[in-house]
Amino acid sequence: MKKIETNYKTTVEFYDLDPMNVVWHGNYIRYLEAARCDMLEKIGYTYEDMRKENNAYPVAKMELKFIKSATFKQRLNVKTTLQELEPALIIKYEITDEETGKKLFQAQSMQIRVNIETGETIYNASESFLKKIEEYKE
Amino acid sequence: MKKIETNYKTTVEFYDLDPMNVVWHGNYIRYLEAARCDMLEKIGYTYEDMRKENNAYPVAKMELKFIKSATFKQRLNVKTTLQELEPALIIKYEITDEETGKKLFQAQSMQIRVNIETGETIYNASESFLKKIEEYKE
Amino acid sequence: MKKIETNYKTTVEFYDLDPMNVVWHGNYIRYLEAARCDMLEKIGYTYEDMRKENNAYPVAKMELKFIKSATFKQRLNVKTTLQELEPALIIKYEITDEETGKKLFQAQSMQIRVNIETGETIYNASESFLKKIEEYKE
Amino acid sequence: MKKIETNYKTTVEFYDLDPMNVVWHGNYIRYLEAARCDMLEKIGYTYEDMRKENNAYPVAKMELKFIKSATFKQRLNVKTTLQELEPALIIKYEITDEETGKKLFQAQSMQIRVNIETGETIYNASESFLKKIEEYKE
Repeated sequence: MKKIETNYKTTVEFYDLDPMNVVWHGNYIRYLEAARCDMLEKIGYTYEDMRKENNAYPVAKMELKFIKSATFKQRLNVKTTLQELEPALIIKYEITDEETGKKLFQAQSMQIRVNIETGETIYNASESFLKKIEEYKE
Repeated sequence: MKKIETNYKTTVEFYDLDPMNVVWHGNYIRYLEAARCDMLEKIGYTYEDMRKENNAYPVAKMELKFIKSATFKQRLNVKTTLQELEPALIIKYEITDEETGKKLFQAQSMQIRVNIETGETIYNASESFLKKIEEYKE
Repeated sequence: MKKIETNYKTTVEFYDLDPMNVVWHGNYIRYLEAARCDMLEKIGYTYEDMRKENNAYPVAKMELKFIKSATFKQRLNVKTTLQELEPALIIKYEITDEETGKKLFQAQSMQIRVNIETGETIYNASESFLKKIEEYKE
Repeated sequence: MKKIETNYKTTVEFYDLDPMNVVWHGNYIRYLEAARCDMLEKIGYTYEDMRKENNAYPVAKMELKFIKSATFKQRLNVKTTLQELEPALIIKYEITDEETGKKLFQAQSMQIRVNIETGETIYNASESFLKKIEEYKE
């Protein structure tokens, strides 16, 4: 399978911060989700497309590694890599300071394809998802 | 209509705090929602019951007044008063320090009954909601 | 005082949504804060500048009006207007669909200048804040 | 080192839910933090005590495993186990349905002791933290 890599930019807002004046660790999950949805949009297979095919991709596992804390108004780049598609969707994330390139955070998520109606797990990707990935151009 | 007043207790968690080491102002909305759901549960007309009747009560208006900031592990009491039911659901909230009774915050919300399927606004409460309120005993 | 009006654009993310598949009402507070910080940055008087002058501007009041619900990936424009500066900072917000211009939400916030060290309320704006506003060009 | 195990109870609120009508995956981090603070309170070594000793324990790693989704008003039990204290604080979490005992989620966090002023990493626990753990009675 072709590896796809996209970049999503975001800025740390005041509501992201905790009393140590850095991003509260749980808020990185939001950055990851926004970056993942951005990647799926660029591929052309969005949550909307999943639903039309009766699919959902709930998150089954996540590994988070906090390297250096991010601060107010810091510009972040979330590099998102589609690692595996079958039997499960595995995505890697790397958050760096947009300006310096310094690595702040990395993570990996595993999502499993589920039939919304039956709740059944499906271990391969849909034809249309695979096709979109094949057609993807950077 | 009978005025109903309930009390909901909660504790300030670390994730509620902002860099000033006090509850971030937007997080009070969560306290209000938890208190409101608690009141509806005590009345016996929950979101589940609403849905069965094809109703939703989206929030249409909110007024928030921040009086004194709340801090880590502070025990809060949210006094919730069902003010009006028709033509719209109006609820008042008052957050005090559980121990001292000192007032920290007050708010008011207006919610409008909507038919989930048609999206139509309905200006009276359902029979079953009214009945539950009549039957409510403190 | 010169009225200042800025526009901040944002996109509805999946984590913003509630079970009705629309933005959870409490999340609008985040949009407002991001828009407010963006306006202060454009004016050139940021939270950082406030702190250097020993000032904070905690939110004292908010009025929120929910007109039409926003949905996944909808592009929003938050028009932010600096309405009054003294005795308190009053800002108005209007959220519209970026494409159609349809109004979805409006709000007003009141923030009070406080000396961080003494906790004392101050009813006028600092010289430097006033100067930045005078110098502001759209 | 003595293993310490505590239990923290919480209820799923409406604001925790996503469009699939289940707890949004990122919100489990809040449950974990509340359970962890509860454990530290029971041990008698709180964030406040840490700060007095110039310590912070930022989260360095997390592993999350989502087993079964939680729904509105579900009562959850977060079993929290202090696994290791040195060279890093390792805590395990298991979220079960309070009534049925069915496992919904499990996680592990690693936190590293840091001197707040110097930013320096410290690979052992403070005397007072160790003493509190020794004295802990279930």
